[in-house]
Amino acid sequence: MEATRTRAEIPIHLESTNKGRRTCEVIIEDGILDNLGDEIAELSSSKDLGRRVVTVTDSHVGKLYGSKLLTGISKEFSSASSTIEIKAGEKSKSLVNASALCDKLAKLGTDRNSALIALGGGVVGDLTGFVACIYKRGIEYFQVPTTLLAQVDSSIGGKTGVDTEWGKNQLGTFHQPRAVFIDPTTLDTLPKKETINGVAEIVKSAIVADRRIFDRLCDAQESDLLSLETLKPLIPSVCRIKAQIVAKDETEVGPRATLNFGHTVGHAIESASSYSLSHGRCVILGMIAESWVAWQLDLFEERDFSRSQELLERLLNEIAVSQKARQLLGNKKELTRLAMSDKKSTTSGIRMSLPERIGRMSVGGPDGNYKVPVSNEMFVASINYLREHLA
Amino acid sequence: MEATRTRAEIPIHLESTNKGRRTCEVIIEDGILDNLGDEIAELSSSKDLGRRVVTVTDSHVGKLYGSKLLTGISKEFSSASSTIEIKAGEKSKSLVNASALCDKLAKLGTDRNSALIALGGGVVGDLTGFVACIYKRGIEYFQVPTTLLAQVDSSIGGKTGVDTEWGKNQLGTFHQPRAVFIDPTTLDTLPKKETINGVAEIVKSAIVADRRIFDRLCDAQESDLLSLETLKPLIPSVCRIKAQIVAKDETEVGPRATLNFGHTVGHAIESASSYSLSHGRCVILGMIAESWVAWQLDLFEERDFSRSQELLERLLNEIAVSQKARQLLGNKKELTRLAMSDKKSTTSGIRMSLPERIGRMSVGGPDGNYKVPVSNEMFVASINYLREHLA
Repeated sequence: MEATRTRAEIPIHLESTNKGRRTCEVIIEDGILDNLGDEIAELSSSKDLGRRVVTVTDSHVGKLYGSKLLTGISKEFSSASSTIEIKAGEKSKSLVNASALCDKLAKLGTDRNSALIALGGGVVGDLTGFVACIYKRGIEYFQVPTTLLAQVDSSIGGKTGVDTEWGKNQLGTFHQPRAVFIDPTTLDTLPKKETINGVAEIVKSAIVADRRIFDRLCDAQESDLLSLETLKPLIPSVCRIKAQIVAKDETEVGPRATLNFGHTVGHAIESASSYSLSHGRCVILGMIAESWVAWQLDLFEERDFSRSQELLERLLNEIAVSQKARQLLGNKKELTRLAMSDKKSTTSGIRMSLPERIGRMSVGGPDGNYKVPVSNEMFVASINYLREHLA
Repeated sequence: MEATRTRAEIPIHLESTNKGRRTCEVIIEDGILDNLGDEIAELSSSKDLGRRVVTVTDSHVGKLYGSKLLTGISKEFSSASSTIEIKAGEKSKSLVNASALCDKLAKLGTDRNSALIALGGGVVGDLTGFVACIYKRGIEYFQVPTTLLAQVDSSIGGKTGVDTEWGKNQLGTFHQPRAVFIDPTTLDTLPKKETINGVAEIVKSAIVADRRIFDRLCDAQESDLLSLETLKPLIPSVCRIKAQIVAKDETEVGPRATLNFGHTVGHAIESASSYSLSHGRCVILGMIAESWVAWQLDLFEERDFSRSQELLERLLNEIAVSQKARQLLGNKKELTRLAMSDKKSTTSGIRMSLPERIGRMSVGGPDGNYKVPVSNEMFVASINYLREHLA
């Protein structure tokens, strides 16, 4: 595995068409934020250095890194670089805000040849990607993720989205960034409570596709499991997992669904809490419940089930699961309704992406779309299991 | 050319990737509206007949054809077919309405396996396509265009969009319908004044790519130029032109820009009129001005320039160009500003797609993207030419 001091370059070859190759570059390097002007000029589809480059960031990240980024960009794209700041927080991820952002871009004179940079966490990335997709039917954009969750997961793969009153990420598109620039030093300013969201996705990626990362996490001392010293060196490997899966299945008709492990139950809990419980906490709970379902259905090997439960329980000890979370799990009707409205589910019922072994997911029945049908009874039983587990 | 009694099937092979072929079928047949349930079941990517099929239409078209369509659909998709009606008119094409439409779909239980049908003209088609693209990151949809403009142009090619305060179609995506079902008999109920919008695009297609269609239009008697007897038999050929160009260049980075002939000037006039002048009228005016630019730049052969001006003038005699249109042409500053904000234009100036001969467009300079740089002076001169022409 790479040390993060060095540079890791992971090209995602999205598809080879009769019109050539479409690629998204994922580049990981300490301090890359200082040279983004060069990096973007190098990778841009347009060689027009007069093109407008607009950075979208939020009120927190903007204060920390906005001017640094702008300085780097301005060296290359002197005439036309500017920054738009949105309010930090999930509430910004709405269609109304996407619309306001487009209005601002238009006022700045942003054209089809312009590019956007998303500097921030998942909210900034998802919203900026969505805007880049719909503005004048699509312009180029770059992801510069600054949270662990965004660096190992949400910034890679081209999923964009906004939330609606009836759920998170219910409206969105697939629109690939030209590149993702990951500067792990930005994690040094990340609030501790944000780390858990990234860790949850790292553990997920390990169970889905990489036993070695799983082993490394198991080897970490109890106290080190959430430390940047443990986590930073894993970033390139976790990005590589995501890159490989996305390259195989950009629009999630097949194996990309495996990255949803833990998310059917996790999203239901998150929704039921009206998003007062963090995504990472909910995904950890979701993985505990779904691992159990996989084991109950005779998909997940007993020994790997035990090992995964052990690691997930260690995480559970690190995070405070409130009385509120326990109460939520009592409302099984509501949770079932929410799981039925999950994007993977169909009119014929709940679907989950489930592991067979640590590092390998089930292809999920005869149609092989990596989504395993799960009866409502089994879903409720998994919630009961989770509830007893937490008691 | 085909008689429209028979069935014309035009497959658009969008691209051959390492994951297989993606195709949109364009099917033209009198009375096909009666069998849409069968047709959709046949072409659906999902063979699940329990899937939800939701028709989106407007208050005019819904009255005429909504229940007929629903009957045909219900035969195949009995459990889950329904209709959503939007208000007829361009004002419905907004992000706010797209959002409301998504809310309604969610309430109906529309999932990723569901499909939408756009029954109507360009407004219904563009809005429904946009919603199909963003709803849960994309669901399948079918176009059933009922205006001449939508049948020969806007329903084919996967452009979706909504209008903003700063312009038409400024937000949108490329999202291909699985199929386009064209029933020319629906034109029998089309208001006369709508016909001109379709005729403008037919003439455009002829100048861009098909000298034979151009000749046929020239051969039509003065009084027949806008008659359905002249126009209906041309539909399959005009659809084929669009299909071929879209197959070559789905996202308009190259030759698809040629279909914008007449639209740089046309859109500017349309915007300046606050959309009180119809699209077809503006495109006819735009083609007159842009043909003249092409001739001035020594791109358009003299003889073909004269022939195109002659046909366009015949059209001009058919349509009433108001005093208001003449006045608009006086505001050259505003028109220039609008042309500069056209999607084709860049920070370095106005771009137009211009003909070399009837049936062949200019590749447009060294980068060969079919967009010819036009100076602001030349643009203003073309507006002056148009103004004198109308006086």
